[in-house]
Formats: sequence, C-alpha cells, structure tokens
Amino acid sequence: MKLATLRLDGQQCVGIVSDQGIAVLPLSTGIDAGALIAAGLSPEQWRNLAAEATPVPATAEVSYLPPVINPRKILCVGLNYADHTKESPYEQPDYPTLFLRVPTSLVGHGGAIVRPQASDSLDFEGELAVIIGKGGRHIARESALSHVFGYSIFNDGSVREYQFKSPQWTVGKNFDATGGFGPILVTADELPAGAAGLRLETRLNGQMVQSANTSDMLHDVPSLISIISEAITLEPGDVIVAGTPSGIGWARSPRLLMRHGDLCEVSIEGIGTLSNPIVDESTR
Amino acid sequence: MKLATLRLDGQQCVGIVSDQGIAVLPLSTGIDAGALIAAGLSPEQWRNLAAEATPVPATAEVSYLPPVINPRKILCVGLNYADHTKESPYEQPDYPTLFLRVPTSLVGHGGAIVRPQASDSLDFEGELAVIIGKGGRHIARESALSHVFGYSIFNDGSVREYQFKSPQWTVGKNFDATGGFGPILVTADELPAGAAGLRLETRLNGQMVQSANTSDMLHDVPSLISIISEAITLEPGDVIVAGTPSGIGWARSPRLLMRHGDLCEVSIEGIGTLSNPIVDESTR
Repeated sequence: MKLATLRLDGQQCVGIVSDQGIAVLPLSTGIDAGALIAAGLSPEQWRNLAAEATPVPATAEVSYLPPVINPRKILCVGLNYADHTKESPYEQPDYPTLFLRVPTSLVGHGGAIVRPQASDSLDFEGELAVIIGKGGRHIARESALSHVFGYSIFNDGSVREYQFKSPQWTVGKNFDATGGFGPILVTADELPAGAAGLRLETRLNGQMVQSANTSDMLHDVPSLISIISEAITLEPGDVIVAGTPSGIGWARSPRLLMRHGDLCEVSIEGIGTLSNPIVDESTR
Repeated sequence: MKLATLRLDGQQCVGIVSDQGIAVLPLSTGIDAGALIAAGLSPEQWRNLAAEATPVPATAEVSYLPPVINPRKILCVGLNYADHTKESPYEQPDYPTLFLRVPTSLVGHGGAIVRPQASDSLDFEGELAVIIGKGGRHIARESALSHVFGYSIFNDGSVREYQFKSPQWTVGKNFDATGGFGPILVTADELPAGAAGLRLETRLNGQMVQSANTSDMLHDVPSLISIISEAITLEPGDVIVAGTPSGIGWARSPRLLMRHGDLCEVSIEGIGTLSNPIVDESTR
C-alpha cells in the first residue's frame, strides 16, 4: 500500500496511491497518515479503508504534505555510510550518531525547500526514512522489523555554516522547511526486509550527485531500531532518517550549494522520487 | 499565576497553585497546561478561569506531570555558563550550543528519574526552563520577552557515557524519564524580566552541588529566543531549557553519579523546587 498525506482542494486528507491514480481514504478529512498509524489499524481494517477510497478527479488540485506532519520524534542518523564519513571531518564512531529534527523543519514533496536569509550554505542529503508502526522499548534486533509501518524518502537539507557553529549540529539541521519528506509512505510488505538493497540517488537540476545502495548503511534498519530503543521508547509515527551516502555539496571542491531556482530530487528504488524546488526565503 | 499539570485521583487536569493550595481549572479534564497555552487565552480569560477554579480537597491524591507533556520542541542549550564550559571538554563557542529532547524523556515533579540498565553514568543538570506563549520567526531581541508565557525548572538528567559515544549528545540526553520538569510554571509577570537575577541551586541528597545565578547565562532569555527564531519557527508550548552551571558530577574527581535511592532537587528563586527520586530501571 502506498499512502500519502495530501492537500486536496485546500483540505488535508490521506490518499492511497496506485496505478489507477490517487483515491482518498474515508473519514480522513483533516488528518494525516500519522493519525491512522497511531490508530493501530489491523491489516483487515486497512484493506477495508482502501476498498472504500474515493478516486480523486483529474480536475482536483492536489499537493503533497509530509506523510507524517508532526512526528513526536524525528531521529536522524549521521555518519551511517562509510564513504560519507570519509568526506566529513569526523572519525567513524562505533555507535550511531543521532540528532533530532523538529516538525517545523519538514516540507512535503513539491513544496519549496527554503534557503534561509541567514546563510547560503544549503546542502542536500538524500536518505531513507523509516516510519514506526508499533512502539516499544528494548526492542530486539530480531523482532525490530515488526515495528516498522513503512518507508519513505527524506532530503535532510542542511545549512552547513550553522551545523558547525557549535559542537552540536542542531540548528543547521532544523531551519524551517529544509527537510523534504515524501512523497509517499510505502508499507513494509511491499519492499525488501529492512528496505535493504535499494538504490538511492540524489539529483540536483537533473545531475546525479549521490548514488548508493541502502545496503551500504553501517547500521541497518533493525540495528537502528534496536539501538535507539535501548534508550528511548519508540512511538507509532516516529520517523528514523537513516543517513546519507557520500557526494554532499559541502565536501566538494569547489563546493556545490543549492540556490534559488534549483530542483533537488531524491529517488529510492521501489518508493519513488521526492522532488523539491529550492526557493530563497527573501522571495517568499 | 502558578500553573501545574496534575494527575488528580487518576485524572489529568490543570491546576492553579497558590498559598491557599491547589485548585483545578474548569474544563481542564484530560488536558495539560500546554493545551491552554496553545489556546492563546487573553489575560482576562485566564483571570476568569482562575476565578472559577475548584479547590482540591486535602484527601485527594495529587501528583505532578510535566507542565507541558508533549512540547513540539524541547530546545536545550549546552555550554551556557562559562564556568560549566571550563569543566567540559569543549571550547566556549560564540553561538549557543543547541540540542533537542523528545517528550518521552520528560518526567514530572516527584516522579522517578530513571537510571537506565544501559549505563550507571547518570548525572544531574539544574536549569531554567522557558515556556513560549506566542510563536514566531525572526523575533527581535527587543520584543523577545513578549513571546514568553512563563518559566519553570528543569533537571537535564544526562547519561554521560551515551552522550559521548558519538559526536552528537542526543542519546545521552534522551533516555526515557531522565528530564525532570516542573513542578509548576510561573507566568512571566510574576518574575523579573527574562527570569534574570534568580538563584539556581541543585542538591543531591540534601547536599548543594550546583549554585549559580541565572544572570550568569552567556546567552540570556531574549538572546536565545532571538537567535533560535532566526532559524526555527517557535510555537506556543515550546520549551527552551537554558543550560546548566558548573558542578556537574561527571567533571568531579572522584565522579559523583546519581544512584538508586538518591533524591535530586533543583531550586530556582521565585519558582520553587523540582524534586525527583532516582530509581534503577531494573527495579521497575
């Protein structure tokens, strides 16, 4: 099943996306996919909802919102591909490098990633996003994948100058509307276990800037869930953003940064393509 | 006005605390102070609510929850007292060192701060908490205090071994039930501007371990609001945890760590005392 949180003729709702197009789930007006995940529906209840979905007419005005609009937690993983760590100023730690994002930093598919007034050092980072379905603490690696609802795509847009203004990356990772998320959420049953073995590619204005395979992650999805939940209770709708491979613009010579008018696209095999135009804050 | 989010005979509600005791605000069953802040009540509406509050009988069973239970953002400031930076392995950055907490890490006044199975390196950090009333972006320093709803007390309990397992402090700052928050939220009008000039003291088993004045903060409350909102939209109910002074246990020789059976108290002049017993996870 492929779910999307949509704005349809100005009204927020949850859609199901298929070869036949988009259909709106019944009773989903005003909510996001996160609310349905939190409701803990059974597979049968999901099938019933999908069967009653109303096709969206071609004339409707549809835009994509983040699949989960206000996750309780957005747990991001840094330094999770060895080749990316090599292009960074850091040694490879044994333990995952976790940082958090806040919901105000999210933007849906097609929405503008905003280059802030404060700095022109806006960089891309294509990543796999994992959406938790069933919460828990002290989740064993062996059962971790039973806690995953599905997968999506993330562009962990980073304002590099602010990322390195202090020992913690927080501000550079949390400017408003810098984290592209979507377009859809693909339920785990439609992808390989742990979303392993999928090609991940980032393109800036059509040119490939990152290319990797999700199997290159140092800490795979079951490990991340197990390690995080040793410390932190995971809740339905929480998002784990699993890290970016090499190719970031800040590590290039000369540096490649995103500018007003650029288009950044992140594709993951089996999920789709997250596409965001870059827009200067000053023009909004 | 002094507000508290309470569990009263098993039912969550919002109380108003005065010399006469605790009274429950009308229509507050099931909500927290954060919901009332988000509602954006006028001063007159607050006065009317307070006038209709129902005194809590002495026989009632009352416990304290975090004043805001699920803040959208918990923005914590590291290295915000020069003497604390000197006892840390870091140089003093010019820019505030921000990290985030998630709501699962919070615990109210009187609740147990949990020493996790994973590590015995649990340390205290007494801090001032700022609760945002009116949101905004690009807030000028001069008008920043008009965005503050009130102030509270925070114990930024830190699992030091996990704080330093990778370049980012996130996990060590986010173990379940390590962040004491409360007991009450004092509205800004009852304290000096920016909660400046207040004595802040932390006691472990009655012994003073931290003693400072909120005026010693390198970035004061108006500056923090202005600097954060350059990047991030602040929302009603967001919490800024303003940093800890020197005296932490991890920097002492020998190290002083919190253990099962300990009692940790953080007091701020004009707000009160946040008190939390330390309990081993394994005993729960």
